[in-house]
Amino acid sequence: MSFIVKVPTNSVRIFSGTNRWMNMPNRSRTSSSAMIPHCSISAPAIQTLRKSVSNIPIMVNGCTGKMGKAVIQAADSAGLNIVPVSFGSEEESGTTVEVCGKQITVRGPSERERALLSLFEENPNLIVVDYTVPAAVNDNAELYCRVGVPFVMGTTGGDRDLLYKTVEDSEVYAVISPQMGKQVVAFLAAMEIMAEQFPGAFAGYSLQVMESHQASKVDTSGTAKAVISCFQKLGVSFDMDQIQMIRDPKQQIEMVGVPEEHISGHAFHLYHLTSPDETVSFEFQHNVCGRSIYAEGTVDAVLFLAKKVQSRDDKRLYNMIDVLREGNMR
Amino acid sequence: MSFIVKVPTNSVRIFSGTNRWMNMPNRSRTSSSAMIPHCSISAPAIQTLRKSVSNIPIMVNGCTGKMGKAVIQAADSAGLNIVPVSFGSEEESGTTVEVCGKQITVRGPSERERALLSLFEENPNLIVVDYTVPAAVNDNAELYCRVGVPFVMGTTGGDRDLLYKTVEDSEVYAVISPQMGKQVVAFLAAMEIMAEQFPGAFAGYSLQVMESHQASKVDTSGTAKAVISCFQKLGVSFDMDQIQMIRDPKQQIEMVGVPEEHISGHAFHLYHLTSPDETVSFEFQHNVCGRSIYAEGTVDAVLFLAKKVQSRDDKRLYNMIDVLREGNMR
Repeated sequence: MSFIVKVPTNSVRIFSGTNRWMNMPNRSRTSSSAMIPHCSISAPAIQTLRKSVSNIPIMVNGCTGKMGKAVIQAADSAGLNIVPVSFGSEEESGTTVEVCGKQITVRGPSERERALLSLFEENPNLIVVDYTVPAAVNDNAELYCRVGVPFVMGTTGGDRDLLYKTVEDSEVYAVISPQMGKQVVAFLAAMEIMAEQFPGAFAGYSLQVMESHQASKVDTSGTAKAVISCFQKLGVSFDMDQIQMIRDPKQQIEMVGVPEEHISGHAFHLYHLTSPDETVSFEFQHNVCGRSIYAEGTVDAVLFLAKKVQSRDDKRLYNMIDVLREGNMR
Repeated sequence: MSFIVKVPTNSVRIFSGTNRWMNMPNRSRTSSSAMIPHCSISAPAIQTLRKSVSNIPIMVNGCTGKMGKAVIQAADSAGLNIVPVSFGSEEESGTTVEVCGKQITVRGPSERERALLSLFEENPNLIVVDYTVPAAVNDNAELYCRVGVPFVMGTTGGDRDLLYKTVEDSEVYAVISPQMGKQVVAFLAAMEIMAEQFPGAFAGYSLQVMESHQASKVDTSGTAKAVISCFQKLGVSFDMDQIQMIRDPKQQIEMVGVPEEHISGHAFHLYHLTSPDETVSFEFQHNVCGRSIYAEGTVDAVLFLAKKVQSRDDKRLYNMIDVLREGNMR
């Protein structure tokens, strides 16, 4: 036996979360701005912000990559001053690429140091954002520290212990985080705090986890694993191999509700908890399309770092939790 | 334009959260116990627990009410020793009612004190659970404090400030909470911590909130309001009048997915956050059917209180956060 739910396709943006709203009397939609995307700060405030940040020159290394491009776009919208040089591969070296209407000259490994030194001389407030490749993480960090330029490391992989040691042994200010999605980091941190403060609060509950990512992602979501380990501390018994990995585009569009244009880049997560007697359930979802959340988080990390450098803070090495604690900076 | 989702009615327990699973390859369901309600502790452990708690005599005042009955059932299953006396109205006084196969004699206001005194004399480890009526909250608390018997106050209403003062001025151990749903309290606490630690983390996000309760509940969910105030601290702009209150049984069954047998008693909540550019969304749900979550939380509060009395803890007045911090006690 079954019943039918008609779901307008225009509402299928994320797990059927939104679908329901389309079928319900929606007071908020008619009576308020809740449905209209809006910015939390006023136009004049944005002007003031642009003035204050436009003097922050940022160098985005890996500008030809997807994240590099996304960061340049977000930084440009935020009013940051993107310098026309970027680290790239030896093959690209010397070529000029256009990103968001900006001409950027690529410098390969052999020209890296000279390029950075002259750029830092011209722009003493320079902040570097690194979205290159795992193989370049440690060499780049070592160079940033040697030159003494503050940086945000968004590139994953490489020798992470060495990365942290390189920064700790230097005088350089840096934000290092494998996850730049500020709101996802906040959600995970809240789950970790709940697990630490209330161990066993969900004892006996059963858990179902579904995660959907582009087909090219072969491994299981690291964020899902981190959230699940919190639920385990909360008393839920769950094996990581019970995670439902969705990689089939047809399922992602029809079942999960991933917009077709984001099949090649999305990160959807659903956690469903059910009490032993099945009278209680909790559900948590975090659904990301594209890269703007990571790009915006990176811009926040740059603004944060600029403040810390300016105030000569004693602490020099930060992560996204530190950025979150600082509060909204724009 | 729309597409069709077929939803087995047996899966329509909570907001369509579960429906999706029914349409998806479910590794966990076939390969693990994740779908089978189970207890987090082993049978021998339960035996030990029963021994240790069976000597805790509990008096459930308001035993003829729905919560009173639910608590007696949960306490009985947990192996607690329910005494055969309960406070009730003057009309019921002297009558004997059967709850979970137990004969319980009701004592009205005029007989309250004598009944409690003799009961406490026979059962020096007595713990009282109060699920009476708002009008009785302060008189009952005053009596428990005068006699010196530890109690769990689950009844809402009355003069709350006076209630706390009465306990603070006494030597009595008590757990007082208007919300006994342990997991709901844990979720709300986690949201409060996130809001406090990461102000503005969701700046610019839009919020939709839906809550469904039995038609007899005229006011808006207090839990929803508390969670929303956290989102406001996180930078979301939302007016309380934007909350979608669902009170129509037809909508609750067909749209929300409330099981028909729980139309007269449920508390479903859904919070949906969307980023300004609509590429990111978060969803949180806590869906409660019936009263077992509150009854189980009350039993946990009793076990917690028994421990505190036994250890002669310096702190005497507790809430559900304290109970949660203690961890799983069974």
